Amino acid sequence: MNKKFELFKTSETSNARYGIVRTEHGNVPTPFFMPIATRGTVKTLTSEDVEQLGSPIILSNTYHLYLRPGLDVLRAYGGLHQFMSWNGVLLTDSGGYQVFSLSKMRKITDEGALFASHIDGSKHMLTPELSMEIQQVIGSDIAMVLDECTPAGSSHAYLQNSLARTLYWAKRCSDVRVSTQQVFSIVQGGIDTSMRIDHAKALMEIGFDGYAIGGLSVGEKFEDACDVISALDPILPKDKPRYFMGGAQPHEIVEYVKRGIDMFDCVLPTRNARHGLLYRFVHDDVSRKDFYETIHITNEKYKMSMEILHDGSERYTLGYIRHLFSVAEMTGQRLVTLANVKFYLRLMELIRIAIDEGRM
Amino acid sequence: MNKKFELFKTSETSNARYGIVRTEHGNVPTPFFMPIATRGTVKTLTSEDVEQLGSPIILSNTYHLYLRPGLDVLRAYGGLHQFMSWNGVLLTDSGGYQVFSLSKMRKITDEGALFASHIDGSKHMLTPELSMEIQQVIGSDIAMVLDECTPAGSSHAYLQNSLARTLYWAKRCSDVRVSTQQVFSIVQGGIDTSMRIDHAKALMEIGFDGYAIGGLSVGEKFEDACDVISALDPILPKDKPRYFMGGAQPHEIVEYVKRGIDMFDCVLPTRNARHGLLYRFVHDDVSRKDFYETIHITNEKYKMSMEILHDGSERYTLGYIRHLFSVAEMTGQRLVTLANVKFYLRLMELIRIAIDEGRM
Repeated sequence: MNKKFELFKTSETSNARYGIVRTEHGNVPTPFFMPIATRGTVKTLTSEDVEQLGSPIILSNTYHLYLRPGLDVLRAYGGLHQFMSWNGVLLTDSGGYQVFSLSKMRKITDEGALFASHIDGSKHMLTPELSMEIQQVIGSDIAMVLDECTPAGSSHAYLQNSLARTLYWAKRCSDVRVSTQQVFSIVQGGIDTSMRIDHAKALMEIGFDGYAIGGLSVGEKFEDACDVISALDPILPKDKPRYFMGGAQPHEIVEYVKRGIDMFDCVLPTRNARHGLLYRFVHDDVSRKDFYETIHITNEKYKMSMEILHDGSERYTLGYIRHLFSVAEMTGQRLVTLANVKFYLRLMELIRIAIDEGRM
Repeated sequence: MNKKFELFKTSETSNARYGIVRTEHGNVPTPFFMPIATRGTVKTLTSEDVEQLGSPIILSNTYHLYLRPGLDVLRAYGGLHQFMSWNGVLLTDSGGYQVFSLSKMRKITDEGALFASHIDGSKHMLTPELSMEIQQVIGSDIAMVLDECTPAGSSHAYLQNSLARTLYWAKRCSDVRVSTQQVFSIVQGGIDTSMRIDHAKALMEIGFDGYAIGGLSVGEKFEDACDVISALDPILPKDKPRYFMGGAQPHEIVEYVKRGIDMFDCVLPTRNARHGLLYRFVHDDVSRKDFYETIHITNEKYKMSMEILHDGSERYTLGYIRHLFSVAEMTGQRLVTLANVKFYLRLMELIRIAIDEGRM
């Protein structure tokens, strides 16, 4: 039996879970991390690079792809898989987050989110139905429902109003779903655990293939994020994957996994790479603290470093990479991106092994 | 017997030659093209990429490497091969051309060229001995002597003075050469064929492993460059390679090969790639005119092109590459760079086959 999600093991000492998500473009062991291919490419990398790094899944952004290359191009190619020559699993967000964070103007109504493109100022109305249509044209294996990501510190009244709309939008997304695509909904509610629980239950009544936790990593305290996740663990169905939406540092990922999260996306390994910040392991036991460190490759002390960069080819020294950054050669950004994505993929592998071996 | 240069075949209908240059880091069939790794990387590519494209040789720039990373770093790594993890053949220029084209200030005397760094304004005196020392620290397989590249339109008097100095510098370079490195001299003399011939003969009296023709591609007419090369063909020793220094479009390379040139470097395939200009073959017979074309990948007409880019992976469409350029993703520049370098390498292979088959 090929269920869309299957749990192999649940920790006896935490809420950590080891399982697998199955799609038409391959299976992804959980917990996993998705490199971000915002505009149809993981910045500085090719689809071939991501394959060679061993990532079975990437995330792309609906908002960006809708504006460029646009639906006409995506339709002509038969979807993003073909367009970017990516044969693995593809998850798309709904576009909602970018409307709220990037666009010049926006007006949220029950109908949808009216926004002006950050590129040319053109106006668009992103409704739940349009978001789903775009994601269907993209042909992602997993689509996200349109939601409003409420800012940290939102008032109770604002949250209540927003949650009702996010629920209404989730229902409308569900109504237009297609059988070839998994659809995940997004639990909102700020750091108010009882509102989070109510919202989760309401979404579960509609029924989705997975449940994301949104509206975290928006400025709240790390402890508050942990409390929200812990509170949702007994509520969310055990037999569906849980997806933490938003940036997370490696040690935070470990803590979220212990509280029941199965899926992560994070721009940190790729964005930081382009600024010369390299992640590397101090030791392999990710269940212990301080298992990793970050270094600034541009630091003078790496000028003559013979240490090898773990980018997959394992042949360039930190001293050489530092030189590439100091003369602004983009090859440096690419090599550190490879190394950081490899680090995050290895982190998730070590986490799965730790759960399987009963160490997490 | 492993001679440093060996001719396999000479054309019966032109001066084209098919042979091989042998070095400690591998052998290179001639005529060949060298991708340019100015600062220790072919822009947007890794050493691994260049290997996979099949180029047995690259060119690096002495001036740039002297300023960054500097001799201390290059010494610590044991040379540029180790520093950039390049196992193939390496040729370095002398630094002279960059002193004349890039530095903020320069003063040429018989001693050498005094210049101010284009990076920080620091002053340096590039003597023939220092140029050779830098190239020895870099550890290039083929070093070039320091010369003055005279601008197009230089007066007879200026040329005479400059040629005497370039000859004097060549002698001084020869005096400090080491046995592990081939050294090529550079024939100057503008478009005055008799001065070119006299200069070549004087350099041949000193004796070098190869002879470059410099001071072309600096604004003179294409026909004048051809005349200079044709005039030098019967003068230069048959048993040494001849290197055309400077940019050359594919059809110009064919014409120069017919006039006896064995080696080329050219920034056009890589620089043009970063601006979205793609080289591609119209047909495989490079002895016929119009065997290639260039296209601007950003053109609207490639928006939905299903044509495959020949970058080595042969999996991305022109429409996708156009998208990457339109959203300024550096992966687009990298893929077109791969395709253009592959084009130039294939061009040289087709030229060698044409000579071998008596078609050029």
